[in-house]
Amino acid sequence: MASNKEELKLFGMRLSPFVSRVEIALKLKGVEYKYELEKMGNLSETLINYNPVYKKVPVLVHNEKPVSESLVILEYIDEIWKQNPILPSDPYKRSLARFWSNFIDDKCFSAMGKTFYTIDEHERETSIEETKVAIQILENELNDKFFGGEDIGFLDITAVLIAYWLPILYEAIGLKLFTNDKFPKLYKWSQDFNNHPIVKETLPPRETLLAFYIAHYESLAASK
Amino acid sequence: MASNKEELKLFGMRLSPFVSRVEIALKLKGVEYKYELEKMGNLSETLINYNPVYKKVPVLVHNEKPVSESLVILEYIDEIWKQNPILPSDPYKRSLARFWSNFIDDKCFSAMGKTFYTIDEHERETSIEETKVAIQILENELNDKFFGGEDIGFLDITAVLIAYWLPILYEAIGLKLFTNDKFPKLYKWSQDFNNHPIVKETLPPRETLLAFYIAHYESLAASK
Repeated sequence: MASNKEELKLFGMRLSPFVSRVEIALKLKGVEYKYELEKMGNLSETLINYNPVYKKVPVLVHNEKPVSESLVILEYIDEIWKQNPILPSDPYKRSLARFWSNFIDDKCFSAMGKTFYTIDEHERETSIEETKVAIQILENELNDKFFGGEDIGFLDITAVLIAYWLPILYEAIGLKLFTNDKFPKLYKWSQDFNNHPIVKETLPPRETLLAFYIAHYESLAASK
Repeated sequence: MASNKEELKLFGMRLSPFVSRVEIALKLKGVEYKYELEKMGNLSETLINYNPVYKKVPVLVHNEKPVSESLVILEYIDEIWKQNPILPSDPYKRSLARFWSNFIDDKCFSAMGKTFYTIDEHERETSIEETKVAIQILENELNDKFFGGEDIGFLDITAVLIAYWLPILYEAIGLKLFTNDKFPKLYKWSQDFNNHPIVKETLPPRETLLAFYIAHYESLAASK
């Protein structure tokens, strides 16, 4: 499928976990791309034309054809560039990777968002509890070094949200969720994952992300 | 992959569009399965053990291994039984089928649910408007007899929710959304889809579904 003439652009933002997923997948496969930096709150017309339904990043544009939604993009990348497959070859294991990736976007991400954005203390407590329950379920599912086995796979990439973003987001609001005591397997996994050379060079700096969340949270608190 | 010794069970409910998706896919491929009927509000322990995270149908159990979530199940079916593929072979077209299927479950289904379940008139109006906007987007995307081209494909199967359930749900609450005037392409498509021999034998009877929604809606109205 791949040829030298092809053009690959990733429309992204530096602090988005969903964009990070796409970057990690492309780098694991050694595929070169041009990064088109979008600004939060001031998206380019080009981006909006490429993703008129959701108007958000990431969008991967391959030879002028746009693919949106990070999980859809990961599947596309794995189908176009066959080297270093990210989905398992076994259909049942593939179904599990998809199921748990949807679980992360459905249960974990929504609970994280509620924890961060709600102005209601009770709702916040509830969403923290929901997050813990979801994380515990993932803890129970982790049986190898990575979800993908010995190497990083589809579900690990999806779970960058849990490995990197979640602990920093919690730190920004003065909470510590993700400890070795409570979730020993996930904690170890998150360290291995975040320190993987390709992941490490892709993640935004910790201090930048923390400062962003702290500032964002303070502005929310001030508007209460 | 398939052998004579395999065991295939579908845990479902007769009025669920998500179960219908799985049935249509299996029947299009000519795969035999045993239907395990679950009761609403009284799920079997077996089902809950197979899908402890969401505790819902459909669950497809293939040689004792459970696969949950209808879109994940459709991918699994297409990977295990290669005959009559439901996803296109081209990676870009595959990505579009996945993108629009997620759109249906994300935008259309949630708007439908709000229309039906809300007790707030303003919220109801808003959700009806959201549904219309979402349906109009789908109308614009339909360029062939089916979304899959000349034959029923992945996105058509996902969109059974729009072809069959949506008009009946609207009828139950005294609305008519899905007319030839407003959405001529989708209307024609829904007729072709619902009358496809395999789809037709899979869908629950119209009168049963309508009566169920009317009774359900009346009990909601009575509890306001």
